[in-house]
This record gives sequence, structure tokens and C-alpha cells, in this order.
Amino acid sequence: MKIVLLGSGNVATHLAKALKAKGEDVVQVYSPNLVNAKLLADSITAEAINDLNAVKTDADLYIISVKDDAIESIAAGLKAVSGLVVHTSGTTDIKVLSNQVKHAGVFYPLQTFSKTKEVSFDRIPLCIEATDAAQLDILHKLASKLSQLVYELGGDKRKVLHLAAVFACNFPNHLYALANRVLQQNDLDFEIIRPLIAETADKVMTNLPENVQTGPAVRADETIINKHLSMLNDMPGLQEIYQTLSNSIKLMPK
Amino acid sequence: MKIVLLGSGNVATHLAKALKAKGEDVVQVYSPNLVNAKLLADSITAEAINDLNAVKTDADLYIISVKDDAIESIAAGLKAVSGLVVHTSGTTDIKVLSNQVKHAGVFYPLQTFSKTKEVSFDRIPLCIEATDAAQLDILHKLASKLSQLVYELGGDKRKVLHLAAVFACNFPNHLYALANRVLQQNDLDFEIIRPLIAETADKVMTNLPENVQTGPAVRADETIINKHLSMLNDMPGLQEIYQTLSNSIKLMPK
Repeated sequence: MKIVLLGSGNVATHLAKALKAKGEDVVQVYSPNLVNAKLLADSITAEAINDLNAVKTDADLYIISVKDDAIESIAAGLKAVSGLVVHTSGTTDIKVLSNQVKHAGVFYPLQTFSKTKEVSFDRIPLCIEATDAAQLDILHKLASKLSQLVYELGGDKRKVLHLAAVFACNFPNHLYALANRVLQQNDLDFEIIRPLIAETADKVMTNLPENVQTGPAVRADETIINKHLSMLNDMPGLQEIYQTLSNSIKLMPK
Repeated sequence: MKIVLLGSGNVATHLAKALKAKGEDVVQVYSPNLVNAKLLADSITAEAINDLNAVKTDADLYIISVKDDAIESIAAGLKAVSGLVVHTSGTTDIKVLSNQVKHAGVFYPLQTFSKTKEVSFDRIPLCIEATDAAQLDILHKLASKLSQLVYELGGDKRKVLHLAAVFACNFPNHLYALANRVLQQNDLDFEIIRPLIAETADKVMTNLPENVQTGPAVRADETIINKHLSMLNDMPGLQEIYQTLSNSIKLMPK
């Protein structure tokens, strides 16, 4: 497939490399910042552009992978194309595209991407949606080349998934960072806690998390909870989080 | 070493099996509930007892692995022994033992244990402490047989580690459970989000979490944050957690 990529952030970068690795023909990379466009385009031997008027109109697929609030204005610049236009957002409605372009779709990879770490696409859930069955079929075929985990999902479920991802990924990562702050303040290295983080995630690969909860809150061990809260006296933000999450654990049905 | 194990919970069970696998001689398992004691004792061909007066006084090591508030009363029943008495708690002070027994120590495995999942001890950080150097040496040798990761740590640092573990393990697991609640309410399976959880933990094996934070809060994407908050209107507990953690992410130094 002949593909134009609009965006040069983490998702766009990982996606471009995965598409290239599967032999897809990414012909252009657009970014309002030409340096960013070139950085990504050069790595996959595509053309870098920073003007939407320069977008080739004969591509099969246009992938808009930018911040949510920039999707609409980029789609407005693609009114002339007849290929399928998709975005990669968990939250933005497909209508933002279908109001403006002929064929619209969504191609949402449910994963966390960072510049510093490679990810293997074949185990990334790809959630797809399209305005008509023929286009959905095209997307399904492309997604299946990249990943074993392809889900056809309506917009409402995709938005729920994105919300769940915040709880399952963004918030846990922040809690790792708070753990590190506690460790650093006491000259302890983050390294010591890495095996625990790995095992905590590994446990829920074969169990449901509500069945493997451990720690003072699930045992309602008020002595330890109070000791911990007093250790956090000089970190009121962490104290509030400790209290809020411990209360929430206690309220879970057993 | 001749070892008596006092306790039959998750930590005691996993520890007993690991000790047995390394050829250590666990001779007795004590629990106030004889059925529980027998269940564990039988699996490692030890004697089950439910009376502290029946504890053999000639063992080399006594491992108290019970809830924190039960440690002291069990130690009181071991005044006659001359071997080393340790507990496995992250939070209880070594003095709770050393006030009562001749040789006291701590043997704290920094890991989350569940009945339903085997763990390999050799990558579990074992944090040890003892009242004298000779006993610390004994503990160090034993710990090194079980794990590659042995840390000699004073009580203050051990308590910090336990607090950090709540943030790095117990709270993330609870957030996985809340993610599952959101998914279930919308007929989505937890399976779809497992690769994301695995990758989130995997990322911090080689990065510090504060350097790989993703999601709407770190981008200060108020549009998505507000959409998510309104999706949680009928789940006020989750809404409060979403708000609290998002605010905390925004306050992290960039």
C-alpha cells in the first residue's frame, strides 16, 4: 500500500517503522515542523513535507497521528484525496474525519510508545473502525499484517478502552515514579524495586487483578497504613494518593 | 540448616518451598490453625504443630512469617531457643524480636506472593538485617543460596522500601482492577489490555518511570481529561482517583 503519514511523534514513529518493516510503501511524512518530518522520513526513506498542499493525492491510505485537537485541521487539508483517511486516536470520534473526507477510519494501537524503547508490533492490540465495510476490510488486512491482535471496535468502546488504558498504564507508571521519589529521598536505588514491578504486571497476565491484590489496604492493616501515612507527612501529595487508593482498595468487593 | 517456620500464609508457603528446593531442612511448620500448618508441612515433609511449646529448641533458624501484629506474641514463645530468630516483615522493627530472643534478624523478601502463581526466588530482592555480624553472615549465606539479589539493609531503609512497594505494586494492581471494572461495564474483556500492562512495566526495567510517562495528564490535554472525567460521572470513586492522579502527574518536574 502507498501510505502518507501525517505526524512525527511517538506513535507515528513506531508505526512508520513497523509499516516499513512489513514492506508497506510510506511515501511521505508530514509535520508542520520540517526538521521533525525529515528526521522520521529519512529513517524510512520517505519524502518529508511541511505543507498540506504538497500531500500526494493518489495514496491508498493517509494516517493522521497527531495530538487529538490537531486532527480536524489536518483532515480539512485532505479533502481532495480519495484514499482512506484514518487517525490513531483512542478518543477522537470518527466523524471528525468523515465530515471532511470521502473514506474515514480509525487505526488505534492500544500501547504506550516512548522514543527510547523499541516495541514489537505483533503483540499490540490494534483497534480499527471504518465508515464502510470495504474500507474496514482494507484496514483489517493491513492491521493483521502488523499484529496478531486486531479488534474491530466502535467509537464508544474505543473511548472506554482509552479510559481504561489511563488506569492500566499512565497511572501505574506515575505510581512507579512516586515510588522512585520515596526511594531517592532515602538513597535507595530504583533498581531494587524493579523485580517487584515486573512480577506485579506478570501476575495479571494469567489472573484478574482483583483476585491477586496484596498489601496493607486489602488486609485492612490499619497499623501499617497509619505508619505509612506518617512517613509521608512531608509529602502531602503522596499522602493524599496513599489515602485515596487505600480507601478504594478497602471498598473493593472481596 | 535446620529451620522452623512459624506461619503458613503466602510468604511462608513460597519461602518454605524455595528453602526445601535448595536442600534446607525445614523440620516444623507452626500455625495456630493445625489444618493450615499440616497443609504446608505435608508439602515439604515437615512436622505440623499448633502449639508454640512443641517448637524444637535446637534448630539453627526460626522464621516468623505472620501478620505484623502477631510477630511479637510468637517471638515471646521462642525465648528458650538459642538459634537465630527472624521475621519476614517489611515494616516491623527488629527490636520486636531482639527484646525477647537471643539472636534476632530480618529476612524480608521484596515481592508480591499469591497462592495461584509460582515465583522464582532467584530474582527476588532479599533484604536482611541482624543484631550481630556473625548472624548477619549466616543470613547472608542462606539468602545468597536463594537469590542473586541480597541487600543488607537497616530497619529504616527497609521500612522505606516497604512503603515504596505499596506505590509500585499494591496500588498499580488496584488500578489494573479499576481498569477492569471500566472494561467489564462496557462488555470489554481484560485480555485486550494485558499487552499494555506488560509493556508499561517492561519500559521501566531499563528506563526511569518519570522519563517515560505518557497519557493525557503529562501532555496537559484538558479536553481528553474532561471527557474521561465525564465518562466516570456514575463512578465517583474512580473519578476522584482519576482527578487526584492526573493532578499529581501534572505537578511532576519535567
